[in-house]
Amino acid sequence: MPDKVRIALDAMGGDHGPSVVIPGAALAQMRHPDTEFVFFGIAPEIEAALAVHPKLKAASRIIHTDVAVKMDDKPSQALRQGRWKSSMWLAIDAVKQGEADVAVSAGNTGALMAMAKIHLRTMAGIERPAIAAIWPTLRGESVVLDLGANIGADAQHLIDMAVMGSAMARILLDIDRPTVGLLNIGVEEVKGLDEVREAGRILRERDLPHIHYSGFVEGDDIGKGTVDVVVTEGFAGNIALKAAEGTARQIAGYLKAAMKETIFTRIGYLFARGAFRKLAAKIDPSRANGGVFVGLNGIVIKSHGGADANGFSAAVDIGYQMVRNDLKAKIEQALVPEARVVAELPEAGAAS
Amino acid sequence: MPDKVRIALDAMGGDHGPSVVIPGAALAQMRHPDTEFVFFGIAPEIEAALAVHPKLKAASRIIHTDVAVKMDDKPSQALRQGRWKSSMWLAIDAVKQGEADVAVSAGNTGALMAMAKIHLRTMAGIERPAIAAIWPTLRGESVVLDLGANIGADAQHLIDMAVMGSAMARILLDIDRPTVGLLNIGVEEVKGLDEVREAGRILRERDLPHIHYSGFVEGDDIGKGTVDVVVTEGFAGNIALKAAEGTARQIAGYLKAAMKETIFTRIGYLFARGAFRKLAAKIDPSRANGGVFVGLNGIVIKSHGGADANGFSAAVDIGYQMVRNDLKAKIEQALVPEARVVAELPEAGAAS
Repeated sequence: MPDKVRIALDAMGGDHGPSVVIPGAALAQMRHPDTEFVFFGIAPEIEAALAVHPKLKAASRIIHTDVAVKMDDKPSQALRQGRWKSSMWLAIDAVKQGEADVAVSAGNTGALMAMAKIHLRTMAGIERPAIAAIWPTLRGESVVLDLGANIGADAQHLIDMAVMGSAMARILLDIDRPTVGLLNIGVEEVKGLDEVREAGRILRERDLPHIHYSGFVEGDDIGKGTVDVVVTEGFAGNIALKAAEGTARQIAGYLKAAMKETIFTRIGYLFARGAFRKLAAKIDPSRANGGVFVGLNGIVIKSHGGADANGFSAAVDIGYQMVRNDLKAKIEQALVPEARVVAELPEAGAAS
Repeated sequence: MPDKVRIALDAMGGDHGPSVVIPGAALAQMRHPDTEFVFFGIAPEIEAALAVHPKLKAASRIIHTDVAVKMDDKPSQALRQGRWKSSMWLAIDAVKQGEADVAVSAGNTGALMAMAKIHLRTMAGIERPAIAAIWPTLRGESVVLDLGANIGADAQHLIDMAVMGSAMARILLDIDRPTVGLLNIGVEEVKGLDEVREAGRILRERDLPHIHYSGFVEGDDIGKGTVDVVVTEGFAGNIALKAAEGTARQIAGYLKAAMKETIFTRIGYLFARGAFRKLAAKIDPSRANGGVFVGLNGIVIKSHGGADANGFSAAVDIGYQMVRNDLKAKIEQALVPEARVVAELPEAGAAS
């Protein structure tokens, strides 16, 4: 384990660039003093933002580049214009070269995933990366993946995600065998879910290390916290995440309107204000900020593009945790031969 | 248009059977006196429940059957044991025979869809039925489909759903050309969405009657009410609905806990109580109760199995509205030849 966790930051990513990335890093550093930072981007802007954070400055390096991936660049555009030289690419490259332990960017998801995939490549034994997020639930927190790295997933991909998600949950929840559920719909005997059923059968039969397979779960089980890890292909996972975020915003909107309705509700609001603020923070999607790209040779964290310094610092925290608790080793521990759909098991009787 | 809307009710469906179905029907009848009811199920139980609703009783018939589909029956089981004789089947059969205009059941979704499909069959020009729901949004209400009738959808299915959803939205929102969006994820250039892209291209180019195509929408656009009709295949649609419901319940749970936190929040709650109750009703998933099976030769409404009389009456209301405003005719108006992916258009120049 390294003395310091070395964090590469794409200073130009997101809607706000250095004005959020640097104060965000400063907040994360307060919680985790055993960190070092490398900022990639326009040096004068980064220096200006660092000037008011002397403690962070002392633990930081700056690598200048004036190429930045735009929030609406398509992945192919981003690669054409930003490969080898954009702040996003260079942050990933620092991980690739072993100069950083994790890269964090608030830049656009598609470009970040494309660059991370091309430059870091998938881990041995994993076919595709996935985007995993920490989802606040009534019971605490769960890991949900994939949130949109890929559309569609065969049984092997789903099992790989169970392996990677359980590794993340071990770190976050500090338990040895997190419960894992496959996202499904309640309608029985509808065609088209063969891959989910096959993955379920294999997870049940093979009894993999560090995975306590709990069966199918439905959309409302995510918020309930029925299982520690929810596995699904990326289209449904992305829709679920966005639908939940949308609902949270919708209810926050209703709540605000309700509290302004009459003089009584206004008085009530004054009394209960503290609780409301806590509630608002609790249901704020940006608080659980930080999508973890899992399955690559290196850890990359995606922050919401619109996150503020607080939100960005949450993404840095997640990166820190994943490095400190060695996500890669934990994935490898669960990546036994039995986790292959076509298991490469020693032939029966061969060594007896 | 018929003088009375004739409603066939599966009295044995749902978690509570006649004890919810009958008072639910009574509530709906108060709002819509131009209704007649036929109840299918165990006659003595239905009669007992009707005894306290003389006005409803006067507008009702009872058809006895002691066969009922169970909530956990698989569709194939339900068909084996309940075809021709269960309360669910007989309610659908009343629609088929022209003795009722709509069937409402709180029984299990899979069985209800299987029976409705087999007995009513799909409308001419529609390949597959879908389940559509009315989704409360920040802007009002939207129609979302498919919520789980089918998994996967090709371009033609998506366009059929745009046609059917816009017909429903015309009734609900009383506008001639509802806006329609295709549910998608924000990550560009990810493979696997060819069918969604193709459907989008066709909807944009063909300019179908009663459809104002607005492009792709994401999961959080549903709650925002960005479009009047959200179209997606059934797996993602079901997950989105359940994830949103789960989030609503989760936040309601947080809110309850927050209001009990301190003496101040308790006082605040007392003042704001009325607003809270309204809010709770607003975010209660059962209020928007009633999945509409669209695309069949007859209207079937699915109520939540756990709905109370109020919730069940909402499902009956939706059925009433769909009949009174002639859902079928509205679908047919939008089902022009140009709505076929391979359009059967008159040959260019043939008649000139």
